[in-house]
Amino acid sequence: MVKTETKQKILEVGAEIIRKKGYNNTGIQQILQAAGIPKGSFYFYFKNKQDFGMAVIDYYTEIIGSRFQTFFNDPQYDSITKLREFFKSHNEMFESENFEGGCPIGNLAQEMSDQDEIFRKKIEKTISLYLDASTKLIEEAKKEGTITTNYPAQSLAEFIFNSWEGAIIRMKVEKSLTPLIHFDKLVFEHLLQ
Amino acid sequence: MVKTETKQKILEVGAEIIRKKGYNNTGIQQILQAAGIPKGSFYFYFKNKQDFGMAVIDYYTEIIGSRFQTFFNDPQYDSITKLREFFKSHNEMFESENFEGGCPIGNLAQEMSDQDEIFRKKIEKTISLYLDASTKLIEEAKKEGTITTNYPAQSLAEFIFNSWEGAIIRMKVEKSLTPLIHFDKLVFEHLLQ
Repeated sequence: MVKTETKQKILEVGAEIIRKKGYNNTGIQQILQAAGIPKGSFYFYFKNKQDFGMAVIDYYTEIIGSRFQTFFNDPQYDSITKLREFFKSHNEMFESENFEGGCPIGNLAQEMSDQDEIFRKKIEKTISLYLDASTKLIEEAKKEGTITTNYPAQSLAEFIFNSWEGAIIRMKVEKSLTPLIHFDKLVFEHLLQ
Repeated sequence: MVKTETKQKILEVGAEIIRKKGYNNTGIQQILQAAGIPKGSFYFYFKNKQDFGMAVIDYYTEIIGSRFQTFFNDPQYDSITKLREFFKSHNEMFESENFEGGCPIGNLAQEMSDQDEIFRKKIEKTISLYLDASTKLIEEAKKEGTITTNYPAQSLAEFIFNSWEGAIIRMKVEKSLTPLIHFDKLVFEHLLQ
């Protein structure tokens, strides 16, 4: 493997282990072993575990961002449907994973926000990128008349995002899609109407 | 200290460390040291760390349950206000803790649901106790006419609980009460109206 491929491999494998086991509960050796990368080569690519943690957040930010863009730019949907379909698009994946893992950003937010200020700021920034994009969709939906509430778009976007994160945690407890189905109906058929 | 006092001390100190640092990230020695209890006496009171984890969930279930009862039984409030005041009653504590820690049950739900089936089931049961009580309040509020939506009481109770948990995680990221203020307004002044 060339250098960038090795780095990418460590990142892909490590990100998934951290999503499922937690950051503190995951060792660098465990990641390298799972990735089939020789012991000791980690520090060739990452300064330390925290530096790797930042790369994991970037990795997921990019994946989630590109998934968001797919719906954001889909001309077949009006603005509110774009947002709704973005959320719903995760359900198949969650189901295929037996409702384990959940949201990597939400997990790290819960685990790391009190423990590491660099993590907290990085997570805050990632969330704000998503919130800016979804706030725009809600503003558009207000103009299109598909949302009639006069509550500010940004507050709605924040509440919806937080509720989704809560629903995902509940999915992990219930091992069922039901919390996400309630989330979808209550937000898009009640709250925003 | 007599035996029950020692056990209670380990529990109180250990529960708070786990709430702030996570279960996997907390060692038994760390708990005993913080509690000022001689090394080695842990296994006199608890079978193992998992057994202690179950006791921690019981400990918080009791605290949250008694807080809930305070509002549930307060004759000055109608049903929906009881529920709203229960949520709001946490904000002062969150603020005094500089928005660290958050909800012990939500934290363990996120961290442990995929990793330990005994934890998952225990957490599920604790959440269901809370949900039964809040579903009752919402049913009462429907009879009192303070909630007019025809959405089923249990689904509303679940969505509201999940959204609160999401708002608490976001509070930890933002280090601000704002997510909880939005939660309060959007749920009690918009969703349920």
